[in-house]
Amino acid sequence: MAKIIVVGCGFAGLNFAKALKNSEYQITMIDKFNHHLFQPLLYQVATASISPGEIAYPVREVFAGAKNITTLMGEVTEFRPQNKRVVLANGETLDYDYLVIAIGARHSYFGHKEWETYAPGLKNISDALRIRDQVLISFEKAERVADPEKIKPFLTFVIIGGGPTGVEMSGAISEIAKTSLIKNFRHFDPAKARIILVEALPNILPVYPEKLSLRAKKDLEELGVEVWNNRKVTKIDERGVYVDDEFIETENIIWAAGNEAPQVLSTLKVEQDKARRIIVQPDLSIKEHPHIYVLGDCACCLGKDGKPLPGIAPTAIQQGQYLGRIFKSHRQNSHSLPFKYFDKGMMATIGKSKAVVVTGKLQFGGFMAWLAWSFIHIVYLIGFKNRIVVMLRWASIFFTGERGVRLIYREIDKVLKNIRS
Amino acid sequence: MAKIIVVGCGFAGLNFAKALKNSEYQITMIDKFNHHLFQPLLYQVATASISPGEIAYPVREVFAGAKNITTLMGEVTEFRPQNKRVVLANGETLDYDYLVIAIGARHSYFGHKEWETYAPGLKNISDALRIRDQVLISFEKAERVADPEKIKPFLTFVIIGGGPTGVEMSGAISEIAKTSLIKNFRHFDPAKARIILVEALPNILPVYPEKLSLRAKKDLEELGVEVWNNRKVTKIDERGVYVDDEFIETENIIWAAGNEAPQVLSTLKVEQDKARRIIVQPDLSIKEHPHIYVLGDCACCLGKDGKPLPGIAPTAIQQGQYLGRIFKSHRQNSHSLPFKYFDKGMMATIGKSKAVVVTGKLQFGGFMAWLAWSFIHIVYLIGFKNRIVVMLRWASIFFTGERGVRLIYREIDKVLKNIRS
Repeated sequence: MAKIIVVGCGFAGLNFAKALKNSEYQITMIDKFNHHLFQPLLYQVATASISPGEIAYPVREVFAGAKNITTLMGEVTEFRPQNKRVVLANGETLDYDYLVIAIGARHSYFGHKEWETYAPGLKNISDALRIRDQVLISFEKAERVADPEKIKPFLTFVIIGGGPTGVEMSGAISEIAKTSLIKNFRHFDPAKARIILVEALPNILPVYPEKLSLRAKKDLEELGVEVWNNRKVTKIDERGVYVDDEFIETENIIWAAGNEAPQVLSTLKVEQDKARRIIVQPDLSIKEHPHIYVLGDCACCLGKDGKPLPGIAPTAIQQGQYLGRIFKSHRQNSHSLPFKYFDKGMMATIGKSKAVVVTGKLQFGGFMAWLAWSFIHIVYLIGFKNRIVVMLRWASIFFTGERGVRLIYREIDKVLKNIRS
Repeated sequence: MAKIIVVGCGFAGLNFAKALKNSEYQITMIDKFNHHLFQPLLYQVATASISPGEIAYPVREVFAGAKNITTLMGEVTEFRPQNKRVVLANGETLDYDYLVIAIGARHSYFGHKEWETYAPGLKNISDALRIRDQVLISFEKAERVADPEKIKPFLTFVIIGGGPTGVEMSGAISEIAKTSLIKNFRHFDPAKARIILVEALPNILPVYPEKLSLRAKKDLEELGVEVWNNRKVTKIDERGVYVDDEFIETENIIWAAGNEAPQVLSTLKVEQDKARRIIVQPDLSIKEHPHIYVLGDCACCLGKDGKPLPGIAPTAIQQGQYLGRIFKSHRQNSHSLPFKYFDKGMMATIGKSKAVVVTGKLQFGGFMAWLAWSFIHIVYLIGFKNRIVVMLRWASIFFTGERGVRLIYREIDKVLKNIRS
């Protein structure tokens, strides 16, 4: 039985292995976490709409019935393609006949790694809980401090990066401030919170048709978000953020600006693009190492137009399914069947009842787009129970504005020091 | 308007303030956390059945409509009864006309505070997530290590204290191992996990009628739990636990043995019992300070039989409601209306379909008791949405054994060091 190691249980890795359930391959799944994460809804965990458990599903539960698939919780720290071996964080090694790398991406701070401390990004559950804590505790601080001049930094939220995550985060934070928290405070009006979305390019959602970008901007502005186009972040520190040379004092900076593939890929010693992604062949394998495949956000795979495919869930899902079919039909490295990306389109949501959708020649926004967005996300969510619970939570937010998961885990003492300092 | 400060938003503090919504009192609620916690179901968060957000409800949302009630997230570090003042962790002070103290209890390690590191207790959401992480990650370690001799400490769970929490935790951990995780692992059988419940007294559930204690013991044994009565923990360290002089090697020790009131109460400089609880008058006030009331788990209030009332939710709820009525009718310190505890009984659940219930002269166990337990807990849970979601989760566990919230937040690298060392 050929041994396959799959590193990463995101959309790509999971769909690959699902295609090979109970096949003749002996598969080992390795992931840093014990769960597959439905990342498109992660911003809703960060904005107190849904619970982490509702979009995270234990990987080993997915494969409970497949005896040929073993799941290990672990972190790969080195690839040794010459020996067909991976090294785990504790020094342990595992050998393979085929290796599938699908470890996704992390945030890129464009050479300013020190910004991460003050401007967290949103890639895993811990990130989301950290941002949720930060956003909610900021309002708590404002109520404690009460002084209208001193509370401004607590009520200013700067989201950097006008892609889907930035748009979704800023819309949701605006709704928290202006709807969910209404009547909750006695010393200030949460609706006075200032939410700024910063994008260096002329339009937010820059890969969308301009018509939709402008529509998204208008929708955000109606929610009270300030959309700053053509403006660049130049510095971030513990006091706030510089946009061009304007200083904004704030505790709340969220980074949604750029991605890069994880450092560990460099141990493969093969060609990488600027975002550190591995350049793959049309069949997703690596030229120098035909037994290694790279999928999803950490792969640079060229589309029909010669440009890299977008780092979104449909790309990862299709690549996982494609490679599963290749293995199932034993056509590894035959090069007879290159990967073909089927462009289903893109969608981003803006607040609780608006969205923008591009699919084929169809482009639309508003409530219908939001319905389409909601439907697609419920359908793709894993687990019947999670679907019901998430629908219930959305219905509640839609009709009452109430966000059910307004939990702060941090105790207050750490926070209080900040207030005084 | 008389100013009331309420410290603690558990069952007692919350019910007191609810009775005075939109009254002529100016009330400030202070709590370390931003949420009221439905503690009776906290063990279900620790055992991956429900999400934290489903049993935690933002305090300020409860009082959104009551303009006379302000909520502050903060920690009281000193009481100054002479000045009618409380001091917060950052040095800030607040003055009151009346003070209501309802800050609950923490675990007591009977003079062995160093045991807490290895044997966490279960009082707040962070505790529960820490235990959940520990339990789930133990099985992950066993799969990584695979060696049948070396995995024993990962598959041994010792729960110390045979009260309701200990009984509920051991039943639930047994079900995780023997039902929920079935078919999930390839290198070992999770059903082989050993679960030991240690109780120093001759019976578990010692305050229950002996018939029910024995029934609970039998039910637990049927679930595969070893119930060790009449045995005492003598030492706990990083390798495991000594019960009498028998050493059990384990990573998984859960403390459910004793309670004591928080240290800060000693700043009141009034009489406390052995568990550091404040001895209160029949109207729940303090003799030396008639403007201070102490409620719930941190108060020692004597019942009809001259014994302290039990530290359970009904006591706290009734005390909160009682004091609310006293304030509403302006009978503070009239001493004309002492607090009377109405004993509704006790209940504890054992696994997913059994429980024991005592109410008045009625004593019963088994499935009917479990139905009663489930019904009561759903009814008292705060928030319509939470009720629906928790029912859904219970139905899923009941019919499929699947636990929906099997999330590990910790990354694996810290864990791996343990495996190697």
